Amino acid sequence: MNTAIVFINAEVDQVPEVAEALAAIPGVTEVYSVTGAIDLVAIIRTRTVDEIADIVTGRMNKVPGVADTQTHLAFRAYSAHDLEAAFSLGD
Amino acid sequence: MNTAIVFINAEVDQVPEVAEALAAIPGVTEVYSVTGAIDLVAIIRTRTVDEIADIVTGRMNKVPGVADTQTHLAFRAYSAHDLEAAFSLGD
Amino acid sequence: MNTAIVFINAEVDQVPEVAEALAAIPGVTEVYSVTGAIDLVAIIRTRTVDEIADIVTGRMNKVPGVADTQTHLAFRAYSAHDLEAAFSLGD
Amino acid sequence: MNTAIVFINAEVDQVPEVAEALAAIPGVTEVYSVTGAIDLVAIIRTRTVDEIADIVTGRMNKVPGVADTQTHLAFRAYSAHDLEAAFSLGD
Amino acid sequence: MNTAIVFINAEVDQVPEVAEALAAIPGVTEVYSVTGAIDLVAIIRTRTVDEIADIVTGRMNKVPGVADTQTHLAFRAYSAHDLEAAFSLGD
Amino acid sequence: MNTAIVFINAEVDQVPEVAEALAAIPGVTEVYSVTGAIDLVAIIRTRTVDEIADIVTGRMNKVPGVADTQTHLAFRAYSAHDLEAAFSLGD
Amino acid sequence: MNTAIVFINAEVDQVPEVAEALAAIPGVTEVYSVTGAIDLVAIIRTRTVDEIADIVTGRMNKVPGVADTQTHLAFRAYSAHDLEAAFSLGD
Amino acid sequence: MNTAIVFINAEVDQVPEVAEALAAIPGVTEVYSVTGAIDLVAIIRTRTVDEIADIVTGRMNKVPGVADTQTHLAFRAYSAHDLEAAFSLGD
Amino acid sequence: MNTAIVFINAEVDQVPEVAEALAAIPGVTEVYSVTGAIDLVAIIRTRTVDEIADIVTGRMNKVPGVADTQTHLAFRAYSAHDLEAAFSLGD
Amino acid sequence: MNTAIVFINAEVDQVPEVAEALAAIPGVTEVYSVTGAIDLVAIIRTRTVDEIADIVTGRMNKVPGVADTQTHLAFRAYSAHDLEAAFSLGD
Repeated sequence: MNTAIVFINAEVDQVPEVAEALAAIPGVTEVYSVTGAIDLVAIIRTRTVDEIADIVTGRMNKVPGVADTQTHLAFRAYSAHDLEAAFSLGD
Repeated sequence: MNTAIVFINAEVDQVPEVAEALAAIPGVTEVYSVTGAIDLVAIIRTRTVDEIADIVTGRMNKVPGVADTQTHLAFRAYSAHDLEAAFSLGD
Repeated sequence: MNTAIVFINAEVDQVPEVAEALAAIPGVTEVYSVTGAIDLVAIIRTRTVDEIADIVTGRMNKVPGVADTQTHLAFRAYSAHDLEAAFSLGD
Repeated sequence: MNTAIVFINAEVDQVPEVAEALAAIPGVTEVYSVTGAIDLVAIIRTRTVDEIADIVTGRMNKVPGVADTQTHLAFRAYSAHDLEAAFSLGD
Repeated sequence: MNTAIVFINAEVDQVPEVAEALAAIPGVTEVYSVTGAIDLVAIIRTRTVDEIADIVTGRMNKVPGVADTQTHLAFRAYSAHDLEAAFSLGD
Repeated sequence: MNTAIVFINAEVDQVPEVAEALAAIPGVTEVYSVTGAIDLVAIIRTRTVDEIADIVTGRMNKVPGVADTQTHLAFRAYSAHDLEAAFSLGD
Repeated sequence: MNTAIVFINAEVDQVPEVAEALAAIPGVTEVYSVTGAIDLVAIIRTRTVDEIADIVTGRMNKVPGVADTQTHLAFRAYSAHDLEAAFSLGD
Repeated sequence: MNTAIVFINAEVDQVPEVAEALAAIPGVTEVYSVTGAIDLVAIIRTRTVDEIADIVTGRMNKVPGVADTQTHLAFRAYSAHDLEAAFSLGD
Repeated sequence: MNTAIVFINAEVDQVPEVAEALAAIPGVTEVYSVTGAIDLVAIIRTRTVDEIADIVTGRMNKVPGVADTQTHLAFRAYSAHDLEAAFSLGD
Repeated sequence: MNTAIVFINAEVDQVPEVAEALAAIPGVTEVYSVTGAIDLVAIIRTRTVDEIADIVTGRMNKVPGVADTQTHLAFRAYSAHDLEAAFSLGD
């Protein structure tokens, strides 16, 4: 499973509309409107890296009102749970 | 429930160590090492906004090797599921 | 009570007009035209974080002449008065 | 009465300590820890512009842990109340 | 007396025309076309801070060909002469 | 006569001290502490461009506490007075 | 043989189309769509530096949908193989 | 097969030494010293995305003299050859 | 003799055409198309600083396809030859 | 013949010393101290691109007081003379 975190800037007067359109794209699991220099953060989960390309450049970037997207692929996920397991295993 | 998405830059030679330390902080549900201009993305979920302040400025920022954090509070979450419900309700 | 501090850039020839329109939005308590790289600073006070999203992305961003907004949610307020109380309580 | 809005970046591990020290400076009426690219926002209110210089360069900038300050002087304040008055006066 | 130093970027093909128009605005004492990342620097001198707001947002920003202005209010002026006086007074 | 406008950033806790030291350098006619992203603005007036180099790189940059200087040479000065003359001459 | 690495930003809704058009230009050996602040990376290999100029400013920059290109000429290539050879030669 | 393109900034006086050290890391197929705002570009080829994380954060970032790395994962590779095939297939 | 080094960005699809037009302006001695974040570098040599203003803001900025220019006036020229002379003179 | 234009930032208090040291490096034909965001511009002329790498990363970057260099290789030189020739040839 691959996870990508996408930062999105939208036309200033279309943030809620863009958020709804992005959330409806298959593979996009969450979209948040956020405080700060970017407007929206979307989380994508796919089986292959190739599918992320299709979703971002083929679908998200073509939503009207999207001004810019920047994709950050997650290399690796860390969680408290993994660490506990790791500690019990002496990792 | 409040969600915050925190971008973290770490000292260049300590990214995996910082990621593990952040993931062990209560309230931090996920930490991803990511491609791009930032090193890590952490997701925080708390009941109050005040707890986010405690976690970011009181805990995360004090982890050795953390160079900078930038917090984006999620105003609102959009999901495909909500939209379906919304459409059926005529929203 | 939640406080948000919003930085606004306006079309260069519409700063006073935009300031007046923003000040008329319910929940916006103050708007200042300021020196420096940004044009206006607005203070929003609401009972919920959700209302801030409505005000910024639903109302302020749709004011004609607004070019960009950047929202900073206040995690916590510090004041001289709190500190005095804190000191007397041995905090 | 003059109002200045000061953006402050602090050493990453000293944000709450710096906030408390700034809030104790006379003339600083509020300090907020905030989400986003800056750490703190302080509001200063003084009778003269000269006093702002004393507070920022003479007091705030010398607080240990302050890395950078950027001052935005409020040219003018707009409020819903002023606008109502203005409308009733035909302004 | 208040002094403000305003940085101006103009449409690339209208720098001299913009400079002349700005120099004709009452309260603007000097306009320089300059080398570097900004096109023009204007000096404003007024009796009140409020007048600076009128001049910048009400007059300069509305000159055709002005793309962006950034105002820096002088907190305080230092001069060799003041220093000499200061030294003789034991300041 | 050549005019240069120099932007100066100083160590955060030494702005007033740096301003005084700069104002004492021959050829520096004014130093202002200013609001915004830069700390100080100095005006230099000399007979030759070469003297500006001596003042900036030879004197100002060597003042303790100066972190960065950026020099903008004035190509040309515009003033309301010149314009009136120009108009009467049909320029 | 000269190698140039070109960063390309494309209009947000035309990334795959631009990538295909760039890949068809003679001298362009690879085009990658990538995560992060830039959209595409192209590798050019030519016999002369002059040919790179022709390819970038004469061909790539004229592809519809290209918003910006930034060329990095490779001064020198390092590879594990060269190093082994170098070590065995005492370089 | 996954491809990542990594931009590297090195301490100013150690660029050739860093380039040689990076080229010796398994999985790094090419390192180029380049003109422009970055010092080096490295190409990594691995079977899994996870291995890229190990190479970048575990190996490259720990090379002495590396100041900053920025990883761009290739979503997809385009080549003239693919296009020909695509055209013959009616793409 | 004054020397100015001008950085020019051109519309992405007009770099060679802009370069030729700039090179034809009297006082412009060389124009280079270059790798990196800027498109062209022009060298201007004139007898007075005032002439540079005429060439840059009066002529170069008005060439169609010029998006932005940034002028750097040379304060002083250093050359190996001068240094030899300086050393022999004990400077 | 290859030409490279190198932008150099130096430690703030060592600009003239760095300029002299750079001018003494073989292959560096001119060094200018300049107004603006960079401190020095050097021109390099060599027979091969490879020699530029040696001069920049092997020699210039190792001069004490050099903080950063950014190299722009000239793809092509345009001059008024060439254009005249071109016009007479019907280019």
